[in-house]
Amino acid sequence: MAELEFIKTIKDKCEHNESLELGIGDDCAIICDSERKLVTVDMLSDKVHFDTSKEDAYLIGRKSLAVSLSDIAAMGGVAKQAYIAINIDKKDVVSAQKAMQGIIDLAAKYELSIAGGDTNSWDGPLVISTTVIGYSHDNGPVKRSGAQLGDVICVTGPLGGSIEGRHLSFEPRLREAKELMDHLKINAMIDLSDGLAKDLKEICERSSLGALLDLKEIPLSENIRSSDKKIEKALTDGEDFELCLTLSKKEYEKYLSAKLETKLFPIGEIIETKGIYYQDDDKSKRLEVMGYTHIF
Amino acid sequence: MAELEFIKTIKDKCEHNESLELGIGDDCAIICDSERKLVTVDMLSDKVHFDTSKEDAYLIGRKSLAVSLSDIAAMGGVAKQAYIAINIDKKDVVSAQKAMQGIIDLAAKYELSIAGGDTNSWDGPLVISTTVIGYSHDNGPVKRSGAQLGDVICVTGPLGGSIEGRHLSFEPRLREAKELMDHLKINAMIDLSDGLAKDLKEICERSSLGALLDLKEIPLSENIRSSDKKIEKALTDGEDFELCLTLSKKEYEKYLSAKLETKLFPIGEIIETKGIYYQDDDKSKRLEVMGYTHIF
Repeated sequence: MAELEFIKTIKDKCEHNESLELGIGDDCAIICDSERKLVTVDMLSDKVHFDTSKEDAYLIGRKSLAVSLSDIAAMGGVAKQAYIAINIDKKDVVSAQKAMQGIIDLAAKYELSIAGGDTNSWDGPLVISTTVIGYSHDNGPVKRSGAQLGDVICVTGPLGGSIEGRHLSFEPRLREAKELMDHLKINAMIDLSDGLAKDLKEICERSSLGALLDLKEIPLSENIRSSDKKIEKALTDGEDFELCLTLSKKEYEKYLSAKLETKLFPIGEIIETKGIYYQDDDKSKRLEVMGYTHIF
Repeated sequence: MAELEFIKTIKDKCEHNESLELGIGDDCAIICDSERKLVTVDMLSDKVHFDTSKEDAYLIGRKSLAVSLSDIAAMGGVAKQAYIAINIDKKDVVSAQKAMQGIIDLAAKYELSIAGGDTNSWDGPLVISTTVIGYSHDNGPVKRSGAQLGDVICVTGPLGGSIEGRHLSFEPRLREAKELMDHLKINAMIDLSDGLAKDLKEICERSSLGALLDLKEIPLSENIRSSDKKIEKALTDGEDFELCLTLSKKEYEKYLSAKLETKLFPIGEIIETKGIYYQDDDKSKRLEVMGYTHIF
């Protein structure tokens, strides 16, 4: 099943009315308005994105909302409302209740209103669909397509190995996004859900540019530092949910002197040649990225 | 599984920020804004709301969007964007494709943008979650809670027996809602998804008033007219998706002289005594409504 192809078919068939500034394809849609709104939808299911038989349902619920909040952060936005549609497994109502508590607590933490949704019980696994609506920052929204030649590529935290737990408990980078947007001009941004290599490729392709990575600068999560494949893991493991962004060298200098709470790790540069490359023995080599399987 | 209780727990636990004018509990949420927005979310699943083994997947998809459009109509709004999250059964991608075509065609008919969503394949049944965002009409939005003493209660079409097919092919009353809103002041409105008795009860309870029905005025669908239980069916069958609304006698007079395309069937009156009653031998009797089972 080629999901991307399925999505492309939908995209090709859809016409847009005047209410929409940006549709399918970025982290959020943008509604045209006096104040621009951001909208994102995610649907997470048992045995696909989480496992109710092994994982804490509270964290499962929390994650269901957090992935959507991460999308709002990736546009530099402020999350305002969540709508929760839930299919409750009739044989396991307790998990659904715990999951809702995880959602409610995370919503409260980021001052979101849970504004509606749909509740159904069924003879099937837990499914949670979250819709989050946010406001665009005055200096935003930041699209994937805005990278400029010479931009510094940064990430907001260590990467790799999220499967060992962080994929459930990660913090959506809403506060970091807000602080960055308050002080700096961010050219392009994405949240790292599919792994740095694939997500950075998105920014590059949308911006019709390439990237040259400095592999030794990529911050590594503690739990992969001793791995033989630590660089590969940092590049290809999914669900880090850190932000990956690009900004001009001048803005990056501004960041260095601004003493923000948000930490940025510079990991490379936007270049003219399309593709993603890394430096090796004074020669840049191309990083091949093929869907979810990454070879280099 | 008490779904209403589950929802109430969520509602009680949620605090609202300033972005929300109306949250959980009506047909849509209302976003505070220069132009007010309406948001509604529905999640429909195989073997719960439809049956892919028996029903046309194109119509199943169409219905998934139509129920949300019906919610926008019930607030008197104009639907603008749809976001579709879909869990595709790996063994039956064809149904998902047909369903998406049904969604795309209905979106085109009402000039909606399909603005985003989430696509996943899994070893499970087809699940479609639709989020629709609409604009409020200048004279709206119409809440469930606005009924006034003496209001005429109307429905927009014949009721009952939708299970024999109309529940899949019904037309969301967006055009009718628009025409009514253009010409009349509607005090309260709801779309008939759970059956007239239950949905009208919603309007009455929210408005702290009651209703007196004239049973012989309730328009009956063709396929229930010969049934012994036609009145009971018209009152309690779900998924008619006609609008039920209340407006003052003066506005109803205005309707009669305005020669609108939209047909209104007056079926009763809003009264002071709480509960839903019907006239029988010059004596009004109370219509008991208990969840989905209705006894009278």
